[in-house]
Amino acid sequence: MIIGKVLGNVWATKKDPKLSGRKLLVVRTTGSNGAETIVAVDTIGAGIGEDVLVTKGSVARNSLGDRDSPVDAVIVGIIDTLEVDDKLLE
Amino acid sequence: MIIGKVLGNVWATKKDPKLSGRKLLVVRTTGSNGAETIVAVDTIGAGIGEDVLVTKGSVARNSLGDRDSPVDAVIVGIIDTLEVDDKLLE
Amino acid sequence: MIIGKVLGNVWATKKDPKLSGRKLLVVRTTGSNGAETIVAVDTIGAGIGEDVLVTKGSVARNSLGDRDSPVDAVIVGIIDTLEVDDKLLE
Amino acid sequence: MIIGKVLGNVWATKKDPKLSGRKLLVVRTTGSNGAETIVAVDTIGAGIGEDVLVTKGSVARNSLGDRDSPVDAVIVGIIDTLEVDDKLLE
Amino acid sequence: MIIGKVLGNVWATKKDPKLSGRKLLVVRTTGSNGAETIVAVDTIGAGIGEDVLVTKGSVARNSLGDRDSPVDAVIVGIIDTLEVDDKLLE
Repeated sequence: MIIGKVLGNVWATKKDPKLSGRKLLVVRTTGSNGAETIVAVDTIGAGIGEDVLVTKGSVARNSLGDRDSPVDAVIVGIIDTLEVDDKLLE
Repeated sequence: MIIGKVLGNVWATKKDPKLSGRKLLVVRTTGSNGAETIVAVDTIGAGIGEDVLVTKGSVARNSLGDRDSPVDAVIVGIIDTLEVDDKLLE
Repeated sequence: MIIGKVLGNVWATKKDPKLSGRKLLVVRTTGSNGAETIVAVDTIGAGIGEDVLVTKGSVARNSLGDRDSPVDAVIVGIIDTLEVDDKLLE
Repeated sequence: MIIGKVLGNVWATKKDPKLSGRKLLVVRTTGSNGAETIVAVDTIGAGIGEDVLVTKGSVARNSLGDRDSPVDAVIVGIIDTLEVDDKLLE
Repeated sequence: MIIGKVLGNVWATKKDPKLSGRKLLVVRTTGSNGAETIVAVDTIGAGIGEDVLVTKGSVARNSLGDRDSPVDAVIVGIIDTLEVDDKLLE
């Protein structure tokens, strides 16, 4: 999973019917070279500004209960705490 | 899903028969280091210059109704509005 | 799909038996930071110097008619024309 | 698989129920341009500061014995020794 | 598939039981921005210093005859010759 921050919402009237009713959030992740912005489906109630865990790829659908969904990124958790050993970060 | 802009069309006479009749669009996405150009199948009527949502990977086929298609990128939505909290972008 | 140019051939005597008889081409693609070189299976007769469409990932096998093949990149089309709106490229 | 170092833990109260009870570790991997931080599920008892092997993508679930899990990264080994021929590194 | 050079071995006593007996090799690949180091399973007898083809992702397991293996990278060929048209490389 990757770590990201919810930046906002995306609205799309014209879309694949299998995305109907899905909440689409803009998430900024930190990849190997600075920030990357993706759109992830949210089912757990993530809010703007929150740090989240995002699962990518074909297994993301496991969170949706719909294996026919054309969704490749889903928010699977809202991060409470991220504990990292500072000595390992240098 | 990633966010991209439709730049134009690709034409290929010689191709996998499972791509026959598919509309292939050139989409510029913004990855972690500037722009990246990919080709995505469109089934929802996206036009040149429009901002779109693109699903990548094996689940993209879920939008095509053809699981045997060798397609790894599909346009699944045309973006109306992208609302992002400016304070989170700095 | 990604856009690439066929640069040449790869020969491998010692290989997974499921790759036997497969034509393996070196393809230079343009990713988010300059060129990247991959090896793709060709079944449609792509030639050196031609611009091609390459499908990556698990769905690439759909072009081979062999779901047990350990192949993650296949040439699915030879590009005739790529029409891009110049105003969108700046 | 990729090589990474375990940096710490992630805690998420609000999460996909299929992640309940899973140990989520922050792993720093070295990709093509410096470090990248991901979150991986651990089932083999990896500790902070240890070098680990991480499997990514849909096959990562094979380590969990739960194919319905929305998990795209799992720690599959703790590295004892990494023997590399120095002459090949220049 | 990607092209890489075998740099050495990885040893992991504590690992997913499904990796038991697997030969794990360190492979340096050339991605879009310089070198990237991954660990791939070898079943065809690749040696240190050899140039190899590596299949990544869920289809890599097709080389192992074990679909339950949590393996996302496998060496599928040892490169004898790589013939590239020099005029295309400028």
